[in-house]
Amino acid sequence: MFFLMEALPKYAIIVAGGSGTRMNSEVPKQFILLNGLPILMHTVKNFFFYDSKITIILVLPSSQISAWNHLCQEHHFNFPLEIVHGGNTRFQSVKNGLAHIKEERGLVAIHDGVRPLIRKNIIQNAFKSAEIYGSGIVAVNSKDSLRVLKGNESEAVDRSLYKCIQTPQCFDLNLLKKAFDTEELPTFTDDATVFEHAGHKISLVEGGYENIKITTPEDLIIAEALLKNFC
Amino acid sequence: MFFLMEALPKYAIIVAGGSGTRMNSEVPKQFILLNGLPILMHTVKNFFFYDSKITIILVLPSSQISAWNHLCQEHHFNFPLEIVHGGNTRFQSVKNGLAHIKEERGLVAIHDGVRPLIRKNIIQNAFKSAEIYGSGIVAVNSKDSLRVLKGNESEAVDRSLYKCIQTPQCFDLNLLKKAFDTEELPTFTDDATVFEHAGHKISLVEGGYENIKITTPEDLIIAEALLKNFC
Repeated sequence: MFFLMEALPKYAIIVAGGSGTRMNSEVPKQFILLNGLPILMHTVKNFFFYDSKITIILVLPSSQISAWNHLCQEHHFNFPLEIVHGGNTRFQSVKNGLAHIKEERGLVAIHDGVRPLIRKNIIQNAFKSAEIYGSGIVAVNSKDSLRVLKGNESEAVDRSLYKCIQTPQCFDLNLLKKAFDTEELPTFTDDATVFEHAGHKISLVEGGYENIKITTPEDLIIAEALLKNFC
Repeated sequence: MFFLMEALPKYAIIVAGGSGTRMNSEVPKQFILLNGLPILMHTVKNFFFYDSKITIILVLPSSQISAWNHLCQEHHFNFPLEIVHGGNTRFQSVKNGLAHIKEERGLVAIHDGVRPLIRKNIIQNAFKSAEIYGSGIVAVNSKDSLRVLKGNESEAVDRSLYKCIQTPQCFDLNLLKKAFDTEELPTFTDDATVFEHAGHKISLVEGGYENIKITTPEDLIIAEALLKNFC
């Protein structure tokens, strides 16, 4: 006898709050073209290609919403998505995205708008981990030796113990909503730290070195080369 | 009245011990072509372009020396350099390189053969730091959030306190030679840790994100794109 388990509804909150400052660009970095398409559209597409039934919530600064709509027309970008106004901080933007989801039951991925090279199988593994353990945080090993600063000096640390954290960061929706029902702290450097602060365990999932966050002109060149050759 | 300070002699030990395993290549990774020239030749050239009077010691596995000589003929690569046989470990290879330098007085840079995008001004700053403080270790800030593994769990750390270590690592020659006059320890992950073990202080110097270590096929694509656009 088989029981058909109902799949949990899936959401992706894509946070796109950046300016173009570090890119030496007047265009906000998430709108810069990557192989002819705005970075953010690559990101959104990858979540749809992972699962066409996913609900995508795009968190954008209020000042950028009309530019985004214009870009969607220009690039015939018709994927269904819900747009939410961003807050003053990333924490607040994610909180706004979560408040937009009326359901309590489900799984949610929080993802940087400027990580356009995210692969389907990594999204899948992160959601799977969130379903089983409550969270699935994408991370890779540090490629470099690391040193920790101690006052004016520094000390070598064992790099095999360190993980570089990426996104998506996937969670049980209900637990994450409750975790975000708190005051913002300076230690909240990502969504995992908010979840952890609420007393939950963090489960790490293997990410990929190609899943870069585009923040500098060099990153854009790298992303273009990776996209052409690997993605 | 002026005193003309005699510049300290400068050496660069370039360590090229890798195989092609992670590159899915039969060619050792340092010989793979980057924009038409073996990776290692880019690296060597950058040290000569920094200072044409520098003494370059190239540490190569014995099995690769004839292939290197062949490549030099093929690419008309005539920069003067001294070749030293590599050891079984990186520590031993550097030790062999240091033993080849008969002088005691001077400054020495230790550099990864597969970091071909090293910029002149970074080499310069690292040597300057070594001259003043005894060491100059090239490092960059971590771009990612970091977590440290604790048993089966992990914990967020303050990434602003962490530095990702690159090469060159520059030192006072005499102090480094003495520091390498020791048994190899598992904690010797780079030359800085050997120097530190001998009781010396480590001075960090700002590196560059373009100064990547080529270890995977993705890295090669990235290096080609960076070389075309920035270097």
